[in-house]
Amino acid sequence: MKKIINKPENFVDEMLSGILKAHSKDFKKADQSLREIVRKDAPVEDKVAIATGGGSGHLPVFLGYVGHGLCDGCAVGNVFASPSAAEMYNVTKAIDSGKGVLYLYGNYGGDVMNFDMAAEMAAADGIEVKTVLVRDDLATGEDISKRRGVAGLFYAYKIAGAAAEKGLDLDEVVVVTEKALANTRSLGIALSPCVIPESQRPTFTIEDDEMELGMGIHGEPGIERTELKTADKIAEIMIEKILADGPYQSGDEISILVNSLGATPKEELYIIYNKVADLLAEKEIKVYRKYIGEYATSMEMAGMSITVIKLDEELKSLLDAPAYSPFFEQSDIVNRG
Amino acid sequence: MKKIINKPENFVDEMLSGILKAHSKDFKKADQSLREIVRKDAPVEDKVAIATGGGSGHLPVFLGYVGHGLCDGCAVGNVFASPSAAEMYNVTKAIDSGKGVLYLYGNYGGDVMNFDMAAEMAAADGIEVKTVLVRDDLATGEDISKRRGVAGLFYAYKIAGAAAEKGLDLDEVVVVTEKALANTRSLGIALSPCVIPESQRPTFTIEDDEMELGMGIHGEPGIERTELKTADKIAEIMIEKILADGPYQSGDEISILVNSLGATPKEELYIIYNKVADLLAEKEIKVYRKYIGEYATSMEMAGMSITVIKLDEELKSLLDAPAYSPFFEQSDIVNRG
Repeated sequence: MKKIINKPENFVDEMLSGILKAHSKDFKKADQSLREIVRKDAPVEDKVAIATGGGSGHLPVFLGYVGHGLCDGCAVGNVFASPSAAEMYNVTKAIDSGKGVLYLYGNYGGDVMNFDMAAEMAAADGIEVKTVLVRDDLATGEDISKRRGVAGLFYAYKIAGAAAEKGLDLDEVVVVTEKALANTRSLGIALSPCVIPESQRPTFTIEDDEMELGMGIHGEPGIERTELKTADKIAEIMIEKILADGPYQSGDEISILVNSLGATPKEELYIIYNKVADLLAEKEIKVYRKYIGEYATSMEMAGMSITVIKLDEELKSLLDAPAYSPFFEQSDIVNRG
Repeated sequence: MKKIINKPENFVDEMLSGILKAHSKDFKKADQSLREIVRKDAPVEDKVAIATGGGSGHLPVFLGYVGHGLCDGCAVGNVFASPSAAEMYNVTKAIDSGKGVLYLYGNYGGDVMNFDMAAEMAAADGIEVKTVLVRDDLATGEDISKRRGVAGLFYAYKIAGAAAEKGLDLDEVVVVTEKALANTRSLGIALSPCVIPESQRPTFTIEDDEMELGMGIHGEPGIERTELKTADKIAEIMIEKILADGPYQSGDEISILVNSLGATPKEELYIIYNKVADLLAEKEIKVYRKYIGEYATSMEMAGMSITVIKLDEELKSLLDAPAYSPFFEQSDIVNRG
């Protein structure tokens, strides 16, 4: 796990500096700090603003989903570490247009504490803030309120972002995002760790012939460690657990995200999808729109995750809305499968 | 380098089967074989058709660039192995609308032999075929005619595809694509090999503290093996060699592609870009449009490449044209940096 870096302690700031140089038409700093990035056109007039944030090392999560039809701003932490409440607050001030701000991020302790503090600071300024936590990872326990957020963040951003762009008010954006997330479940497997630049240490150890089901994107322990199974068997286990946990049944329409955690190539994601498509067809679950690629990563970790979201007409229309950031683009050029 | 696969010998066909299931609105088989994939709307009436092809293991190269404003069809080989002349010929027949077919692919011996044979078979059917070879890898010798094709394939597809979509005839598409490629240079570094599924063997070996400059995307030997340098130093070496080799000078406008070979994460590409942007600014070379991500890979290989193309007004307009495939999308939603 060799890295192309300079000094490890400069990893995040040099990355952000590179992103700002590359995408100066799309992003700007909220104020002075590289750690507070907002849409170039922020605050967007007469629109609910969406703030997100979290630790670095997960591109395109989180910053990559700042853009048109997505989020308005992002507070950026060190690798796998929460940004500060002050950074979140500065982002909030820079994106609020008077219609309120949605905090939309993954359910991790440090992030929750800091975003809650930022919300209080914003309230003191008269900025209305509501929070929706992404808690899609079914590997993190039976109690949904305690689950962590993983690749389901993508659907949260896409749905909430489209709803805000469409002109819904803050309460309405909260309602439709909560509905989307109630319909969303994710599960991942890890094959190899990544190395945190600052500590130079791998996030976990694993044998050459093993995989871990349900491992977190920071290397948090999962459900079970087993021998490395075939792609078909992995697809079966993951789809079975996801369908059993979430509100899915025969006749439903869903969208599915098959996500690489970093090093796992697209070729393998499609081998997984080849089986997933058959399993869903057997259960008469129809796939409306699929996303296959790198949507939420853990730097150079090998592994992948599957996220399923059940759709109704409202969610389909929001999912179909155009979106653009330098890291994610969905247009209306052609109809797609 | 663990893989999520079933039987290694089914790697390519299961991947292709997954791609067809996922993207049935975009792709179809030319005839019966999974190894011959064309645009769903092929043949596109009154348009020069573009065929490409090559070995598997490089997604989104080659198949991922079949789409609107890109290529019309692709012959798909085993991992790192040329598809057959018969497969190329079948693709050719399925995409030709009577305006002729451009063969556009990387300069590798097996591919050249088979595409030339396919061109003869097509000629016997009265289909006019012209060939443009992509030879952008400056690490493969002084003699440009013998250089291999790497990530410069992306620009070849984008420019030729836009030219064909715009209605240029076969000779005109050839001319503008040759102009684009005369202006294109690439150079890569490799940090770790990938493993070929069928043989289960890594493409090369390298020490934990080493990098190889100019290594090919199949593990072909490069220019020099050294200790792993810093990102800034790597950027300096690569930009210096690219600018010295190609037709670039102060005042030029270019596009740049910073490409991950697979396992190297986006974070590191932006650390490289952070330095690249400064180096180009020092030389007063203006970056018109940049692409940063996975555009030509070698499965799970760690490493990256830089491709530079000098632009004139014609090339800028073709580069700006909308394009869509399930693997690459560029729209007009917003102006971008």
